[in-house]
Amino acid sequence: MAETRQVWAEPLEDFCVQVFQKLGVAEEDAQITANVLVSADLRGVDSHGVARLRRYVKGIRDGMMIPRPEEKVVTETPVTALIDAGAGLGQPVSHRAMEKAIAKAKEFGAGFVTVRNSNHYGIAGYYAMMALEHDCIGMSMTSAAVLVVPTFGRNAMLGTNPIAVAAPAKNERPFVMDMATSTVPRGKLEVYHRLEKPLPLGWATDENGTPTEDGKRVLDNFKTQAGGGLLPLGGAGELMGGHKGYGLALWVDVFCALLSGAAYANTVYPKTADGKPLPSAIGHFFGAWRVDAFRPVDEFKASMDDLQQRLKNTPKAAGEERIYIHGEKEYEVADDRLANGIPLNAKVAEDLRAIGQELGVEYDLG
Amino acid sequence: MAETRQVWAEPLEDFCVQVFQKLGVAEEDAQITANVLVSADLRGVDSHGVARLRRYVKGIRDGMMIPRPEEKVVTETPVTALIDAGAGLGQPVSHRAMEKAIAKAKEFGAGFVTVRNSNHYGIAGYYAMMALEHDCIGMSMTSAAVLVVPTFGRNAMLGTNPIAVAAPAKNERPFVMDMATSTVPRGKLEVYHRLEKPLPLGWATDENGTPTEDGKRVLDNFKTQAGGGLLPLGGAGELMGGHKGYGLALWVDVFCALLSGAAYANTVYPKTADGKPLPSAIGHFFGAWRVDAFRPVDEFKASMDDLQQRLKNTPKAAGEERIYIHGEKEYEVADDRLANGIPLNAKVAEDLRAIGQELGVEYDLG
Repeated sequence: MAETRQVWAEPLEDFCVQVFQKLGVAEEDAQITANVLVSADLRGVDSHGVARLRRYVKGIRDGMMIPRPEEKVVTETPVTALIDAGAGLGQPVSHRAMEKAIAKAKEFGAGFVTVRNSNHYGIAGYYAMMALEHDCIGMSMTSAAVLVVPTFGRNAMLGTNPIAVAAPAKNERPFVMDMATSTVPRGKLEVYHRLEKPLPLGWATDENGTPTEDGKRVLDNFKTQAGGGLLPLGGAGELMGGHKGYGLALWVDVFCALLSGAAYANTVYPKTADGKPLPSAIGHFFGAWRVDAFRPVDEFKASMDDLQQRLKNTPKAAGEERIYIHGEKEYEVADDRLANGIPLNAKVAEDLRAIGQELGVEYDLG
Repeated sequence: MAETRQVWAEPLEDFCVQVFQKLGVAEEDAQITANVLVSADLRGVDSHGVARLRRYVKGIRDGMMIPRPEEKVVTETPVTALIDAGAGLGQPVSHRAMEKAIAKAKEFGAGFVTVRNSNHYGIAGYYAMMALEHDCIGMSMTSAAVLVVPTFGRNAMLGTNPIAVAAPAKNERPFVMDMATSTVPRGKLEVYHRLEKPLPLGWATDENGTPTEDGKRVLDNFKTQAGGGLLPLGGAGELMGGHKGYGLALWVDVFCALLSGAAYANTVYPKTADGKPLPSAIGHFFGAWRVDAFRPVDEFKASMDDLQQRLKNTPKAAGEERIYIHGEKEYEVADDRLANGIPLNAKVAEDLRAIGQELGVEYDLG
């Protein structure tokens, strides 16, 4: 296990808020962004938590992320909207987009908002989960940096394009599916590389488009753009359903990028005022459906409990002890980390301290 | 290759219409059902075409499918509705539900209809594709007979629960994703069994929940309900993402069964008037989003063309010659079968002839 520092969610979030404000981000936007990041750490999705703070700091300093963007609603109907994020941080605009989708769902039964000209928005599940307290089902998708090869292709043309769906239950925890449409995200290759473990065939391809066990080669190829990349869910070819993962990734691009006007398949769109390309140019899609627009909430939630209990209580495969519902592991980690603190990777903790020093924000987290 | 009989779509469809009418199905419903079935044959999804006519005949005769059901709208809001299918055929109610979703999308920007108390609805993609001519994006999902094991589970608790999404393009063909959320459908096991080929590990498990190459064993276990079943997309365990396929299947159950009040995870709901359980008790979910509720249709369609061209023209993996867009293979098969006829399996042709004789419908298809 890597060395860790135990930190508490609240001061960690406060620290991030101050960092973003020092970089010129408005207070509300800083709070939202910090909350999304620390929520990832609480839920055990460490790859999407404060470990990414440096990337946001760099993104703002490089001008790729505008700290106070001109965010505007481009199109709006009773149940839909398109927002241009003005190349700002992905989190604040996504929070507002999901709030808008929920408000529309509460008034009309369902609501959908696409966002273009945005940046990395953190964990997809965060926004889907915003619907839960309103007795709505939430959905969130995002396009992402191009790392995934299409079925039978040699080069990456798609992002890891996650899909998240959250649905409320009664006494059980909500169902929270939050999945990249690739077999694994890039971070998983980095973990295997550090541990010097060969990759399972079906995770990634080399520069010829051939499945490989050599994680270092794939990671190096990303840097030199030599070809190859992550494989869609289902792996290479069609035998194990790789074309299905590829289809899911394309669907996410259609909803997040093509419906909004964001980048897709290595296009770069749009540009900054001075003609500089914005390599992120990310698009998102948010949706909310009000449960009682279909069925009484109590009946639905009772069924959600029953479904979960049936699944958990069904016999286990040989050698297995437990069947999980999506989101359950993350809720359990969050309970533990709220009670006992977040075990922050020591290198990440050092980097936060360095960011604090650079920006004059006190780092007193341990 | 199995022996085949070349038949034409039009007389084949007429034959099916007459069969359904002889069984007491109203003319419009018979026409819709026949059209959905023959569309599957045209698109090359032979497993979901007229090869299933016998099952519908039997379903109606056994009282599991009501030929003239009392179909009613249970709940309706501007953009949502819940329809009770009255245990009728799945196709006619699904056609009407999707038409309702499209009408709502045209008026308000998006529309969603769930259906409960229904039966097998044929190919999921058919309904999603209905949105295309209205410049809408269509979605269709259905719950299905329980054949799929949850991750770490021993017994089947989920259906193959397909998801279909269709989006229009300009000069290119529409994007039509239509995928079971299991690695493969049951039919694929039957094909491998007939060819005496071992199953790839990751398709199915034996009665202990252990991945197996023995297709006969899995198929026998289905009949005797001995346990095991199909694996979700991503295979067994979590290493290759099996929990993601499991999550997608659960999502489909939440939208199709829990939001509508249909059966899920081996529940059986509701019963017929005389208390007989309806083992199908299938639920569906249909959605439509109007493209121009987000972005001008021309811009969207031009991007859809560009996305497809970029994907098709990107370098191929070693040994591969072509990258496909979802739906492309099926459109090409349909072009061929419209021009040259449908190569109907000889056994299926014989069975159609037998059905015709039983019901007094002339079978003159060759």
